[in-house]
Amino acid sequence: MTQPVTLTLNAGSSSLKFSLYDITGAPVQLAIGNVENIGRQPRLKASLGDGVPRVERELSPSEASDHPSTLKTVLTLLREHFPKAHAAVVGHRVVHGGPRFSEPMAVTDEVMAELRTLSPFAPIHQPHNLAGIEAARAAFPDALQVACFDTAFHRHHPKANDVFALPREYYDKGIRRYGFHGLSYEYVSGELKRIAPLLHAGRVVVAHLGNGASMCGILDGRSVASTMGFTALDGLPMGTRCGQVDPGVIFYMVQQEGRTIDEVRDIFYNKSGLLGLSGISNDMRVLESAGVPEANEAVDYFVFRIRRELGGLAAALGGLDALVFCGGIGENSRKIRRRICDGMDWIGIELDHDRNDSGAQVISTDFSRARIMVIATNEEIVIARAAKRLLSEQAGAGA
Amino acid sequence: MTQPVTLTLNAGSSSLKFSLYDITGAPVQLAIGNVENIGRQPRLKASLGDGVPRVERELSPSEASDHPSTLKTVLTLLREHFPKAHAAVVGHRVVHGGPRFSEPMAVTDEVMAELRTLSPFAPIHQPHNLAGIEAARAAFPDALQVACFDTAFHRHHPKANDVFALPREYYDKGIRRYGFHGLSYEYVSGELKRIAPLLHAGRVVVAHLGNGASMCGILDGRSVASTMGFTALDGLPMGTRCGQVDPGVIFYMVQQEGRTIDEVRDIFYNKSGLLGLSGISNDMRVLESAGVPEANEAVDYFVFRIRRELGGLAAALGGLDALVFCGGIGENSRKIRRRICDGMDWIGIELDHDRNDSGAQVISTDFSRARIMVIATNEEIVIARAAKRLLSEQAGAGA
Repeated sequence: MTQPVTLTLNAGSSSLKFSLYDITGAPVQLAIGNVENIGRQPRLKASLGDGVPRVERELSPSEASDHPSTLKTVLTLLREHFPKAHAAVVGHRVVHGGPRFSEPMAVTDEVMAELRTLSPFAPIHQPHNLAGIEAARAAFPDALQVACFDTAFHRHHPKANDVFALPREYYDKGIRRYGFHGLSYEYVSGELKRIAPLLHAGRVVVAHLGNGASMCGILDGRSVASTMGFTALDGLPMGTRCGQVDPGVIFYMVQQEGRTIDEVRDIFYNKSGLLGLSGISNDMRVLESAGVPEANEAVDYFVFRIRRELGGLAAALGGLDALVFCGGIGENSRKIRRRICDGMDWIGIELDHDRNDSGAQVISTDFSRARIMVIATNEEIVIARAAKRLLSEQAGAGA
Repeated sequence: MTQPVTLTLNAGSSSLKFSLYDITGAPVQLAIGNVENIGRQPRLKASLGDGVPRVERELSPSEASDHPSTLKTVLTLLREHFPKAHAAVVGHRVVHGGPRFSEPMAVTDEVMAELRTLSPFAPIHQPHNLAGIEAARAAFPDALQVACFDTAFHRHHPKANDVFALPREYYDKGIRRYGFHGLSYEYVSGELKRIAPLLHAGRVVVAHLGNGASMCGILDGRSVASTMGFTALDGLPMGTRCGQVDPGVIFYMVQQEGRTIDEVRDIFYNKSGLLGLSGISNDMRVLESAGVPEANEAVDYFVFRIRRELGGLAAALGGLDALVFCGGIGENSRKIRRRICDGMDWIGIELDHDRNDSGAQVISTDFSRARIMVIATNEEIVIARAAKRLLSEQAGAGA
């Protein structure tokens, strides 16, 4: 007898994250892993279920020369450990759903064609996401492929937060404030609904702080505003991305320094953020323990921008009922959480330092007007749930 | 007997604003005016003192072919009306003082040389400002020339609000968050100190809303954060400038649409903002009375961004004690003020609609936690005061 599973894939430029969920009932995670450095010196890390030692090893170049060969390697590994698993559906993280896709979609040739037209909006991510879908279609020709979009959660935000003050034709061309990290926000908002429905029904800011970082203002479960806009470059400083920057800086670099636009883009995406400001590392853990002024300045800036955006998002929501931290930094750095929250009593939050240090879920004091929480995010399960749901709908439609 | 005066000059790309102040005692304005469309179809407007009808007429092309000829025309007019005036000092508005100039400076050859090195930071404004100084030096070879900087008021803001998250060398090269409209903020903050010293000592956000627009968070009279950064393009949407925009939009326009960086800059500076969003006008008065969806969207966006920045600046200040409106829109549009303030009780402000409609100076209710005020700004008198002060210092030093 076979075990119905969904495979989830998140294909980056040189990486492939994957997970396997049993979808007999509510999705249950069986395995999760990642291949990095595809095409160069590929390396696999994976957790393959309870009682199985964590796998971590170099791959030969031929095992992961591109997305199709990497997927083949991953599938060989998964079949070895889960011989009864049958993937009737594969769920994909796709960074950009453009103006149209506000929920997960079954991938058809038409959908693929439309997603390809969105590559210019996310040239660094979208082509790789689509390469992942192509590889999965080839590997599982009979399976349903489901695309889940990082932009979808934000698609119903108000017009005033959808536009830039550019000539109107640019809005029609799709130059909009999409917002990203939508799968993470959907998960956290869903958890909040389960744990604290009254807070979920109110004014919530979620701070997704990882190597990529953004914040989202959510009113009654719906995204109202986000710090990210047209691309995943705007808003908060990130590991290597600059976040908010004056457009005049680009004009200066091109017109006064003679840089090409490709060079500027490379600086903004790969050499800026915490790495650029510190000159040391893109890793918050390294910076927090470095103890040198350059590292401290990078951390100061990260915290300052988050506090400023918290005020801005509270304004978009008309106040604040809950602040929720998630992502690698948000879930793990009590120091960063403390620095973000201290002195923000004016906005209604009061951190309980003991709770914050002890890793509690609610880390505000009992007298804090707004609640502060930590919720570990889980983008994979959002994809797995969507995959299961669309599979059921298709089965229902086919019946 | 001569009358000691200071002339103030504010030279734009094709305009020259001027004013004349008697500086026998505290500066008193004698005249104020403006020449627009220099080199094309120049037009002069001026108020030349009490009892003199307002001057408004076309100039011949030769009367205003460039900055020197325009200044000559202006001086002829002023000498005609103020025959006894003697300008021992000329004060200039200069957009960019770079990292070094944090207060008004007597212009020497060395200062001029340094100001010229800043032109790449403000290529659209700085060269014209300096052309104005050159013209005044030629016209008044014996007068003291004083440069007053729009960036100076912000120069002591915290490091976390001075940097972008770019590679460190860019900070050293001068790519910083300077902030602008400093002469206006200095005036408003000074007025607040005079009218309401306790508020001045607190957490104040000033919204300078004109054809150019920015906001500044001021703590105890010192700028902490501003919505403008490296150039006068960032932050709030303006008449024709875009304000905050995702840097990815520039990469898209250049790499996907094949635009040159000059074309993009022209779009961002001259075709965006209220004009671009509405497709109708850069003039708020026109948009407020247009009554069509496109105009309403532009106004909605303007208001939304101001509210969001108000929250962000309050976060930078650790709360809010006063919100002060100034600039053409801030001083004159009760509707915009109302839309900015309504529903912002969470931040501690409550607008009194009657006071707002009647043009009172304090427009919050008696029960509002933070005060809302309107203060008509006056950049010219800030320049005149600085000019008089530096003239006295020089006289003192020479004695």
